[in-house]
Amino acid sequence: MRQASDHTPVWLMRQAGRYLPEYRDIRAKAGSFMGLATNRDYATEVTLQPLARYKLDAAILFSDILTIPDAMGLGLSFALGEGPKFAHNVRDEAAVAKLAVPDMDKLRYVFDAVTSIRKALTQADGRGSVPLIGFSGSPWTLACYMAEGAGSDDYRHVKTLMYSRPDLMHRMLAVNADAVALYLNTQIEAGAQAVMIFDSWGGVLADGAFREFSLAYTKRVLAQLKRTHNGKEDGIVIPRIVFTKGGALWLDEMGGLDCDVLGLDWTANLAKARAMVGGAVGGAGKALQGNIDPNVLFATPAVIQAEVAKVLNSFGQPHTDKTTTGATHIFNLGHGISQFTPPENVAVLVDTVHAYSKQQRTGHN
Amino acid sequence: MRQASDHTPVWLMRQAGRYLPEYRDIRAKAGSFMGLATNRDYATEVTLQPLARYKLDAAILFSDILTIPDAMGLGLSFALGEGPKFAHNVRDEAAVAKLAVPDMDKLRYVFDAVTSIRKALTQADGRGSVPLIGFSGSPWTLACYMAEGAGSDDYRHVKTLMYSRPDLMHRMLAVNADAVALYLNTQIEAGAQAVMIFDSWGGVLADGAFREFSLAYTKRVLAQLKRTHNGKEDGIVIPRIVFTKGGALWLDEMGGLDCDVLGLDWTANLAKARAMVGGAVGGAGKALQGNIDPNVLFATPAVIQAEVAKVLNSFGQPHTDKTTTGATHIFNLGHGISQFTPPENVAVLVDTVHAYSKQQRTGHN
Repeated sequence: MRQASDHTPVWLMRQAGRYLPEYRDIRAKAGSFMGLATNRDYATEVTLQPLARYKLDAAILFSDILTIPDAMGLGLSFALGEGPKFAHNVRDEAAVAKLAVPDMDKLRYVFDAVTSIRKALTQADGRGSVPLIGFSGSPWTLACYMAEGAGSDDYRHVKTLMYSRPDLMHRMLAVNADAVALYLNTQIEAGAQAVMIFDSWGGVLADGAFREFSLAYTKRVLAQLKRTHNGKEDGIVIPRIVFTKGGALWLDEMGGLDCDVLGLDWTANLAKARAMVGGAVGGAGKALQGNIDPNVLFATPAVIQAEVAKVLNSFGQPHTDKTTTGATHIFNLGHGISQFTPPENVAVLVDTVHAYSKQQRTGHN
Repeated sequence: MRQASDHTPVWLMRQAGRYLPEYRDIRAKAGSFMGLATNRDYATEVTLQPLARYKLDAAILFSDILTIPDAMGLGLSFALGEGPKFAHNVRDEAAVAKLAVPDMDKLRYVFDAVTSIRKALTQADGRGSVPLIGFSGSPWTLACYMAEGAGSDDYRHVKTLMYSRPDLMHRMLAVNADAVALYLNTQIEAGAQAVMIFDSWGGVLADGAFREFSLAYTKRVLAQLKRTHNGKEDGIVIPRIVFTKGGALWLDEMGGLDCDVLGLDWTANLAKARAMVGGAVGGAGKALQGNIDPNVLFATPAVIQAEVAKVLNSFGQPHTDKTTTGATHIFNLGHGISQFTPPENVAVLVDTVHAYSKQQRTGHN
């Protein structure tokens, strides 16, 4: 995040996206979603679009969480107005046996975009540059899409595999974890200044199964991640963010992850979460990222302001001691922004986070 | 539930349904889902079908959670292979103003079915009769469908209304709550021996909003419910079950509800839940209902047996003291059974619950 201690930093999951008319223009030019994502210049342009509109404190690489299974040969496509779809799915022993960590050359377009975006951000004038966050889907979330072959509302295929043949599921998750680690490390080498793991579907798992099939493999990724750029001993570490949608119930277990930031959706109570994993100043606590309901952005400016204040008050007075990441709040949505969001409402949200959190720090609320 | 203290009782949400070929036969005869639900004899027959196949410890009325908004005039229909759809939705002041508790005569088909099912159950021979559970959607869950006009994956319309016009949302929820209370009381009068409130979409709400827009109106329903049949002072009370999908995070707040049983989905840890709201013997604790992942039913018999044992062990040794509902477990799925479930696997689950929980009580596990 922007190293600001006078306000709570804010960025939005899926901030570069369909709710912006300038995004839709580029998307039309590119012809397809993958045409957009695989073109370095388009990816750079759309990543920067929300930063031109809003005073966001971070950029996030424009890409998709399913680039890894695509590089594994599963054939990713997006029909207009529909979700992602794979030409091949992974539901049996033969399909799992074929899986391997893909050649990172197949994902060169992602790393080229990272480098290009960093360059553009460094050249940005005005209020100065913001850090670039790289990302990946979590091993479990990738496995969901790989087994289902598309989005799902019951996760029947991935769970059938998991319950019937846990050996195959563990093999798939191990390959995914090693692929995710290599993918994120290559993004770091290309210039990413923080990395985030999206465990979008961790929350669909049963208690117990979450630990075994999602958390364990997020740990396997984290254990392999580079801490610095190109082995430089310059003291700049690459923060690692883990977001499990629906994971608030297991926050005690997530508190043990070797990461710096935990993302939370809107079902979480930030005060309780901070008490549980935020840690004391100087301790080994986690920063918390989140967690306003994206649907708040459909309300009036006055309601948006009130709801932003609620979230900031729920977290409470942040610590400004820079020696600890514990008890730090990064404002975000609890999930990706909706394509139907009125763009002017995003400005209300971002500006309110800055203004209100400044007042919070000076005790004027 | 069947008054059995030698084993853990078990029934399954949506146990009368599409996974059963005998259900699909009746569904085809009825021509449409509503044709099936509104015909007393068909509704009776499909309610009894799973009891003929499996040693279930309760029957649940075959109906739909959306009968109330249909009776309010919103025009419910089900296209084949799709979810429910309303001809009219409720998203603005004019539509909310028109809402009123519907005349229960419009729901006569439901109460007739309850009476007919009770009669059939009382006449059942062999292993004796089981109690009949009546049910309704929760005020919030009904509001979701009424605002969205159908199922949803983002709850955009209902949340836009909630955040923008909380006054209208509170009015809609108040009408829904009073309608649900009257509907359940009329089911009780018709013969229902327990009632369940399905808060299927409570879990999509933000922390805080859940309390204000879901829990508060579940309380309003519970406060109006009859405790006994027709005012009889025979000591037989009508147990009240509340199930919030995704509600495990708010279990401490749900523990304060004036109900006897809390339903839990598979994300909940039954040991933690029991410690939190199960209560001590003789105390005011809740019985817990749940919570195996329905997708376990796609695995092999050996896996199903192992997963059933995990859930029973997670709850732990039940108390058999009949003077308290606290620390009682009613085995169920964490959500409705999938239409793709192999029927023979349901027998494995039901029989394992009985056999394993009997051993548990005698200390032979």
